[in-house]
Amino acid sequence: MADSNPPPPAPAGPVRLSPEARTALRPVAGADILGGFWHDRREVNGRVAVPQGPRLLESAGNLDNLRAAAGAAEGTFRGDFPFMDSDVYKWLEAAAWQLGSSATPGNEDLAAEVRRITGLVAAAQQPDGYLNTWFQVAKGGRRYEDLRWGHELYCAGHLIQAAVAHRRTTGEKELLKVAVRFADHLDTVFGRDKPIDGFDGHPEVETALVELYRETGERRYLSLAGYFVDRHGHGLLGGEAYCQDRVPLREQETVEGHAVRQLYLLAAAADLATETGDGELLTACERLWAAMVATKTHITGGLGAHHDEEDFGDPYELPNERAYCETCAAIGSVQFSWRMALLTGKARYSDLIERTLFNGLLAGISLDGERWLYVNPLQVRDGHTDTGGDQSARRTRWFRCACCPPNVMRLLASLEHYVASTDSTGLQLHQYATGRYTAEINGAPLVVSAHTDYPWSGTIRITVEECPADTPWTLSLRIPQWCTDHRLSVNGGTPAATVSDDGWLRLERVWAPEDRVTLDLVLTPRLVEADPRVDAVRGCVAIERGPLVYCLEGVDHPGGGLDDVVIDTGRPLTEVHRPGLLGGVVTVTATGRRRTLPAAGWWPYRGATDPGRPASLPDTGLNLTAVPYYSWANRQDGSMRVWLPTR
Amino acid sequence: MADSNPPPPAPAGPVRLSPEARTALRPVAGADILGGFWHDRREVNGRVAVPQGPRLLESAGNLDNLRAAAGAAEGTFRGDFPFMDSDVYKWLEAAAWQLGSSATPGNEDLAAEVRRITGLVAAAQQPDGYLNTWFQVAKGGRRYEDLRWGHELYCAGHLIQAAVAHRRTTGEKELLKVAVRFADHLDTVFGRDKPIDGFDGHPEVETALVELYRETGERRYLSLAGYFVDRHGHGLLGGEAYCQDRVPLREQETVEGHAVRQLYLLAAAADLATETGDGELLTACERLWAAMVATKTHITGGLGAHHDEEDFGDPYELPNERAYCETCAAIGSVQFSWRMALLTGKARYSDLIERTLFNGLLAGISLDGERWLYVNPLQVRDGHTDTGGDQSARRTRWFRCACCPPNVMRLLASLEHYVASTDSTGLQLHQYATGRYTAEINGAPLVVSAHTDYPWSGTIRITVEECPADTPWTLSLRIPQWCTDHRLSVNGGTPAATVSDDGWLRLERVWAPEDRVTLDLVLTPRLVEADPRVDAVRGCVAIERGPLVYCLEGVDHPGGGLDDVVIDTGRPLTEVHRPGLLGGVVTVTATGRRRTLPAAGWWPYRGATDPGRPASLPDTGLNLTAVPYYSWANRQDGSMRVWLPTR
Repeated sequence: MADSNPPPPAPAGPVRLSPEARTALRPVAGADILGGFWHDRREVNGRVAVPQGPRLLESAGNLDNLRAAAGAAEGTFRGDFPFMDSDVYKWLEAAAWQLGSSATPGNEDLAAEVRRITGLVAAAQQPDGYLNTWFQVAKGGRRYEDLRWGHELYCAGHLIQAAVAHRRTTGEKELLKVAVRFADHLDTVFGRDKPIDGFDGHPEVETALVELYRETGERRYLSLAGYFVDRHGHGLLGGEAYCQDRVPLREQETVEGHAVRQLYLLAAAADLATETGDGELLTACERLWAAMVATKTHITGGLGAHHDEEDFGDPYELPNERAYCETCAAIGSVQFSWRMALLTGKARYSDLIERTLFNGLLAGISLDGERWLYVNPLQVRDGHTDTGGDQSARRTRWFRCACCPPNVMRLLASLEHYVASTDSTGLQLHQYATGRYTAEINGAPLVVSAHTDYPWSGTIRITVEECPADTPWTLSLRIPQWCTDHRLSVNGGTPAATVSDDGWLRLERVWAPEDRVTLDLVLTPRLVEADPRVDAVRGCVAIERGPLVYCLEGVDHPGGGLDDVVIDTGRPLTEVHRPGLLGGVVTVTATGRRRTLPAAGWWPYRGATDPGRPASLPDTGLNLTAVPYYSWANRQDGSMRVWLPTR
Repeated sequence: MADSNPPPPAPAGPVRLSPEARTALRPVAGADILGGFWHDRREVNGRVAVPQGPRLLESAGNLDNLRAAAGAAEGTFRGDFPFMDSDVYKWLEAAAWQLGSSATPGNEDLAAEVRRITGLVAAAQQPDGYLNTWFQVAKGGRRYEDLRWGHELYCAGHLIQAAVAHRRTTGEKELLKVAVRFADHLDTVFGRDKPIDGFDGHPEVETALVELYRETGERRYLSLAGYFVDRHGHGLLGGEAYCQDRVPLREQETVEGHAVRQLYLLAAAADLATETGDGELLTACERLWAAMVATKTHITGGLGAHHDEEDFGDPYELPNERAYCETCAAIGSVQFSWRMALLTGKARYSDLIERTLFNGLLAGISLDGERWLYVNPLQVRDGHTDTGGDQSARRTRWFRCACCPPNVMRLLASLEHYVASTDSTGLQLHQYATGRYTAEINGAPLVVSAHTDYPWSGTIRITVEECPADTPWTLSLRIPQWCTDHRLSVNGGTPAATVSDDGWLRLERVWAPEDRVTLDLVLTPRLVEADPRVDAVRGCVAIERGPLVYCLEGVDHPGGGLDDVVIDTGRPLTEVHRPGLLGGVVTVTATGRRRTLPAAGWWPYRGATDPGRPASLPDTGLNLTAVPYYSWANRQDGSMRVWLPTR
């Protein structure tokens, strides 16, 4: 392990760039979320979700698999998937970030649990560094015989990510030693001139190897990551888009195949562009991000149109009730977009991160931190028949394929690292959360704090706590894509400041401690419509307020459900602060009516006399109550709609 | 085999009722399609599709599996599914019906092929009657260890159906002996007080056993079928809707789970109600048919909303591009509906059969009889990315899971048996096809012929060829649900005749040979809209003419594709007879325009200023050409739409 070349000061979070990395922006040296909306979500994550991990991993069999692989228990594999180990590693990563976060009570207990489970992992590792309990226990040790579905390198990647996180937040090396041994083993096995020329059907090891390079300085890991990324698309796994093997990423025109696999591969490509300056990879990442966002992203930031194969559909194929929008895909989207934000410095990437965090991702965890959604539909019909299982529209305590819960845990536990960045000119706030963010400018410390009740209020109060005297620097604030009106004051005055084309409000001046900036983002509720090529929502609108997408739930509309509700777009929307509802939310009320349904018949199609003209329907003044999408299905299972018919 | 009780005169087709059967209608004694639309489709089936079967079954490995099971070849199973044998049996059934049809050239060769393959089947059968090459060759003979997915009884069912067909059309007993031995074996294994209390996860053996009872008179087969039907829904296979095991059919409220499995089970329930007079089963069948048709049927008659699990969705969940509409489900729908038509005498069942035959089913086979669709979407976008495979929107020569092609073959080869029925009052024409239909009334022969260019023309000329003198009887003609205007003449005069509530036009009189009836169904092209709860087609219309659903294809609309096309519903539809196009069709032309798309942006959602109001768009007078849905994708792969936006 090349530990002799310590990286420069950087936060104990993910995407800690190497000194050679060529990016527009860099992570800040310190970040802490100290209050407000995200603090509350992270508090539940740290108090409820993460501590439950060991018990859930025990009962699902993941830990027994490690014991069996170590020869310490009966050798029967538990669980249905070859990637059961990755749940352990993702939990270890979540716990590690939690140990580095101020939001964690009971750090001692958690640290002990991490050490205990690290011991199980270390004991299961084979002498040459290989470690995968599915192949060791269930497959008689026949390694690498199914790269398409075996997930060995995918699991290795999550092990490495956990190890890097643990090292960064605690300084402990035990798990990192295991990861390095596995990575060194992989480096002896995989390569064009090595025993196996191939890659894993599920990307993950690629980003992990880049992070391991960043942590250790060992360039072999970076090279191996680059090899894996570039071997995709040459048919080595059969040429399927599902495995990201149809076409090389450098030539790909739009995102395709299994959404999570695509996003993890893109995050790795962005990492490689970051660390190697590979302009072709950067261009491909920009092109694919733009195609994805313009044509394959649900309004919630959710990604992945199809249940079948969990894949992207065609451009503008964005169904509602059958939206897949796997929670893990939202996480992959944040990871990819953050790397692109740092690489390019463009605020649009953080616009998508904001939308995804507040909607597509956060819907994946219940308000109490105990139940999860694997898929995140945008519509559930009245009387929906749910067969249960992982793809249920019902929140579930754990899944047979439990990829999402520990993935949410690790993202929330490291969320503070996606809020702010720095460059030679100053500091950028990408997200608005009460907290403190530390960078340095010309070697001098630069500390900025923010206080806000965002997203309920649009007022963000920023205080310069520490900064160099007499040196101008720039405080950059992202003006979200949804925001058409904002107000700004600096120390009570109103500076002339324009928003750049890509969404940054840049305030350059000589700042002094105690300087105060107040940004007011106007949060008026609004109706949104989709590009007409999004066939699924023709004739519908959605309600948004600030970064939040809203939905109707059946529970708020008794006596008829949602399937016959029409919104009256000519009537005003009203926001209502409801501190007692769903942990405290702002609801949006609208006016609608119940559609007069056609007489019940044996056949649901009939002659269209004048289908172009809206029917004249009585306005029965039905009150509609919209709640934030992330909060749905926290009171009862039932119907839900994001997109509301206008007639 | 109880062969001593020969059934009454009946046609050599499927659903040959037993003498005890209690139905409103009965199959006619003879039926033959002699010209016109369906004759042409059956001619291609008999000349191209069916004769290719043995070659395709050879190359896909199905016949080798039989040889391996017989010990006559190397014992390696070929193919990916445990139901490979069923493809052979379905082909045998198709060939058998073909041998009984006048549309078959080269009957000698086909009869020889059937005998040759029957020999392979017989040789593979085990001494106790068991026969399944997957379990014999690939699973070491471990029978019945996976009833949920093993398909052993499903394959047995198709074997029995083939054997019954072969016996009925040729009188040969070789295949029937194999089937009877297998059925007798099943009767020793399955039952509440027998070694296994269970059923097959994929229904099929149930209808087959009823047909075997009808063929042999052996009531044990009827009892076993009844046992299987009623053991569904008690959790014996895990309780999944997928396997029709969530709830007993008698209690079920709507169709659910895997569409083909649901439909095959319903056909069996209708068969049992037919043969046993079980009123509760009949009520359940009526209830489930009504719920299916009113809320879960695509306009093409296609069934099954989800790719994932091939299952029904919620009521009104009827997507377009992700419509599954498996070709086999269309076949199951015809089988179920025909049994219900006979049982109840109601014309609505044959309305659905007509719609399904002309649209959802016929789209599954190419015009040249050489390529197939497994799924039948209602929309394919411009530039659709198709990954190939069984669920492709591209016609394919054979499938890895080749259930659909031989299923279409067997339905087309026996289609004449779904056209007419008889009862004590006379004869009913359910479908309009040029042909001759023979029944008897009071012991006297009754022969009716029909001549029509339907569905291109709505004129059907019916001639009484033979009938009893001086005895009144009723000729019943189905007035299709889509038909709002018709004209009728009898021997040049215009009789007073009203259409019954359920769609029958009944003409009771003393008929004489040479009597002529002319029915004119007015075929004016029409626009159709869906129940507003069908979210997928909000703001859209479809074009229909007669029983045909139409679609636009990209190939007819060069220079822009289909994704931005809007139809102008205020402009007339025009029909154009195009004898040179697609084997001769009537196209429907309409006027539309290309939508002015929003400026390209990075995000496809935007503020809705007045979303309730249609945009005022210039009428560019774009000519739209609609072709029958069944004929799509016969010129080139490309975009297609059934539902057309109106703004």
